[in-house]
Amino acid sequence: MTPNSLNFSGGPGALPEAILLQTRQAIAALPETGLSVLGMSHRSDWFNAILHEAESNLRHLLGISDDYAVVFLQGGSSLQFAMIPMNFAAAASAPPEYVNAGYWSAKASAEAARVCPTQIAWDGRASGYRQLPDLRALDVARSSAYLHYVSNETVEGLQFPVFEEALDVPLVADMSSDFLSKPVRPDMYSMIYAHAQKNLGPAGVTVAIIDRSLLERIPDGLPSILDFRTHISHRSNYNTPPVFAIYVLTLITRWLRFDIGGLSAMQDINERKSRCLYDALDSLDDCVTVHADRRWRSQMNVAFTFGDTRLDEAFLVAAREQGIAGLEGHRSLGGLRASLYNAVTPQAVETLARALMAFADERV
Amino acid sequence: MTPNSLNFSGGPGALPEAILLQTRQAIAALPETGLSVLGMSHRSDWFNAILHEAESNLRHLLGISDDYAVVFLQGGSSLQFAMIPMNFAAAASAPPEYVNAGYWSAKASAEAARVCPTQIAWDGRASGYRQLPDLRALDVARSSAYLHYVSNETVEGLQFPVFEEALDVPLVADMSSDFLSKPVRPDMYSMIYAHAQKNLGPAGVTVAIIDRSLLERIPDGLPSILDFRTHISHRSNYNTPPVFAIYVLTLITRWLRFDIGGLSAMQDINERKSRCLYDALDSLDDCVTVHADRRWRSQMNVAFTFGDTRLDEAFLVAAREQGIAGLEGHRSLGGLRASLYNAVTPQAVETLARALMAFADERV
Repeated sequence: MTPNSLNFSGGPGALPEAILLQTRQAIAALPETGLSVLGMSHRSDWFNAILHEAESNLRHLLGISDDYAVVFLQGGSSLQFAMIPMNFAAAASAPPEYVNAGYWSAKASAEAARVCPTQIAWDGRASGYRQLPDLRALDVARSSAYLHYVSNETVEGLQFPVFEEALDVPLVADMSSDFLSKPVRPDMYSMIYAHAQKNLGPAGVTVAIIDRSLLERIPDGLPSILDFRTHISHRSNYNTPPVFAIYVLTLITRWLRFDIGGLSAMQDINERKSRCLYDALDSLDDCVTVHADRRWRSQMNVAFTFGDTRLDEAFLVAAREQGIAGLEGHRSLGGLRASLYNAVTPQAVETLARALMAFADERV
Repeated sequence: MTPNSLNFSGGPGALPEAILLQTRQAIAALPETGLSVLGMSHRSDWFNAILHEAESNLRHLLGISDDYAVVFLQGGSSLQFAMIPMNFAAAASAPPEYVNAGYWSAKASAEAARVCPTQIAWDGRASGYRQLPDLRALDVARSSAYLHYVSNETVEGLQFPVFEEALDVPLVADMSSDFLSKPVRPDMYSMIYAHAQKNLGPAGVTVAIIDRSLLERIPDGLPSILDFRTHISHRSNYNTPPVFAIYVLTLITRWLRFDIGGLSAMQDINERKSRCLYDALDSLDDCVTVHADRRWRSQMNVAFTFGDTRLDEAFLVAAREQGIAGLEGHRSLGGLRASLYNAVTPQAVETLARALMAFADERV
């Protein structure tokens, strides 16, 4: 296995080897234009075709209807934390509600509170962010602007199940860290957004999928760049988009659609990977603790610890000696974390599981 | 010459061949880490060293003192058009003033007017954006929040001279399209900003150089991501930055500093290039019109026309046959435009000048 295939970083995450190869060629010269992708104008026919294909692949992979706009933005989820309340809170009679279920969703709600009044629909901080709520059971005012949650918490390794039943309040989901890892039902949502640097390509581009009926709620007078309508009406080409990141995103969606065979096939692979790692960790439950309660364990991010900083660090060293990288836990939680994004192969996860077993056998 | 070296696109612009080669290698594996640059964590030691080097190279190239912060942002100039008045207009007793000297500066002032009251200090629209004002001669209130201008207008091919004498109002300059093409005096400015996709690397990153004394004017309660203090205090690593774009920017600043030998050397090359092209156009002044008045001609973007759409299009075809790309004028002005950013070599400009002379000789 190459070093890139053993990168378990929490993001920017690994990319499939085939895509790294295509990207290298594109930096020398795109097959379609003979010019480097880094010198391509965002007004070129080539780039318009790329934007069109990226959107079309996403619509096909996720089953997104024409009732929804699909746009590519800059600024990551952090800019969405501000833009969403700026765009969608003003017209509603009750404030937006936020589910604080981990590091990232708490950050989203703190940022929204800088823009407008908000309600906290649920808070998992007191229990150390180890569980998730049932969204349907929350007491949310029907007149709320929207209910916001983060579908997968990367820091704590928590993941909501796929949502199969519509709520009677507009649902807004930050899916940054499990987007395109499995099928979802876009029609359950008023808005889905995801930044790129997990399953979707290099950092610097964010996808937003927005129910067009929500656009009526946007107040006039926002700065154009912070108004979703600007990006929709300019087909993601209002100002210079991050051409390279969108190009790689297009390659990734092409790979998912035609090489992997769609999101159900991707889900099967991801389930196999997370099962392999959790099985290994469970077999070591006398010396390893998984942060998340079993029912809410994430398939994308596995946060765990040997319960002792020195052991965690010793494992990082042992792993690195075998070429395994990116296992440091998030700075807010410490411990260890393995991120199993789409580009991480089952073989890589097996290598990690074996390394864990061997380390526990020898050192613990 | 390779196809990339004959790319005269207005942006994203060409990059030096040596940098394309390094970038290709980095996508396979960075020499420092053995991992692809596209899978590197923004929290890694490697990326912190890259951020540090990028800032240090910029400080060295431009002579930026510690009185100024240097940060890397997303969203292009268009996001700055909103952030600058959001951050710096509220505390002043008189509104910011804007110089409308071309397509881009008019856009900046229109966006600022969505955020706060503004004054137009000068407007060149009536004269077709062919001239520029003397900034020192403008009647600007001393108590104005700031005076904003765009140092080089890419669409019309206009460029302000380097500014050598401080105004008594804070001066804010969008230098997106001539940044790092020649020396400037940062101490003349309260803020300089520039997006990447001209002289600085691939689209998706924006540099801001901000006088720290201006930070006191920022009102509390802005969304964190839209508050310059957030990015300064997190050393450009508040949320996931565009790692790849910043990496390439670092290579570019390294190239300028150590291979070219600094901005005076770069200026000599750029003067030679623009002289070569303008000499050719002037020798054809019976059939070619340069948009900008002579005194304000840009060294970066040369907007011109044969005065006849069919001839302009015929020249585009003839140029393309010789491998010369990117000469289409901006959609708002039409005609032809050659952008002579740093990565365009004198040899490439000579090739273009010869192609123009030959075309005029045969077809006009």
